[in-house]
Amino acid sequence: MTFDLDIKSTVRTIRDYPKKGILFRDITTLLADARAFRRAVDELVHPWAGSKVDKVAGIEARGFILGGAVAHQLSAGFVPIRKKGKLPHTTVRIAYSLEYGIDEMEMHADAVQPGERVILVDDLIATGGTAEGAVKLLRQIGANVVAACFIVDLPDLGGAAKLRAMNVPVRTLMAFEGH
Amino acid sequence: MTFDLDIKSTVRTIRDYPKKGILFRDITTLLADARAFRRAVDELVHPWAGSKVDKVAGIEARGFILGGAVAHQLSAGFVPIRKKGKLPHTTVRIAYSLEYGIDEMEMHADAVQPGERVILVDDLIATGGTAEGAVKLLRQIGANVVAACFIVDLPDLGGAAKLRAMNVPVRTLMAFEGH
Repeated sequence: MTFDLDIKSTVRTIRDYPKKGILFRDITTLLADARAFRRAVDELVHPWAGSKVDKVAGIEARGFILGGAVAHQLSAGFVPIRKKGKLPHTTVRIAYSLEYGIDEMEMHADAVQPGERVILVDDLIATGGTAEGAVKLLRQIGANVVAACFIVDLPDLGGAAKLRAMNVPVRTLMAFEGH
Repeated sequence: MTFDLDIKSTVRTIRDYPKKGILFRDITTLLADARAFRRAVDELVHPWAGSKVDKVAGIEARGFILGGAVAHQLSAGFVPIRKKGKLPHTTVRIAYSLEYGIDEMEMHADAVQPGERVILVDDLIATGGTAEGAVKLLRQIGANVVAACFIVDLPDLGGAAKLRAMNVPVRTLMAFEGH
């Protein structure tokens, strides 16, 4: 589901970043606002507040901030999904699509036990290339991906639809159209 | 203060990473353990649980995970301190010492208002070069740095002592000697 909270106004829009013609949605202003940050975390996890969630997986780097808070709120463990070469132990790795070209992301092979219930968290979903790769990586090591949560949805770029087509329930708190 | 919690055993030690002779303290195993992660966050912020904290500043990237959880626990806002070139709005920047050479870190110039009470958070303190730079950057925009919190202290490398010499109270949860 997607709905616009009163916290939407705390997101800052920056024109022509990182390049001309792009409206960049900057959530650092939401995170810095104590009330908005708490409300975002509470709203994001609301559907799972009473159910068992074993792990929250956060995508580097902004997904770490929100993911740490969500894991704490749900009393779950936290698992980082990182750019390649940054994790010290045995990893699993997957290639994923960026706007231009591909990159690789990794997680520790023992970060999730088979069957564990995992919620994926990132700040924003656009084309969904990163989130799709993260879901595949989690499933590769046996995770039961019960949901993917994002503060911001850019629905015109189709990422949330892509995840739902993978049978991942998607929760977002606000949408910005026109991308 | 430094004391060893029962969660110390959840930190994984990896030999010869990132290079021969180094014992790398891997906190991802602590974060993935729901009970240990929650206990670490609760213990870290315990001294400030009843007092006003406006912002928690986390250092990229592992400090984002812990910082997000600490901010949520204290009902504070979160402020990211990032490697240069990653923040979209007007920043302040400072150079800091790494093991070999220097690098630069940034934060948004409007991320903290003058006089706001800020707690700095990272996963580990070693030589303290990064944390020292972060404190200077926070003070440059007028923050009142009330504490710096880390899960792991490597006391032989002197980072905590360096911060205390800057009149920053330091809280760590466990120490590993011999570095």
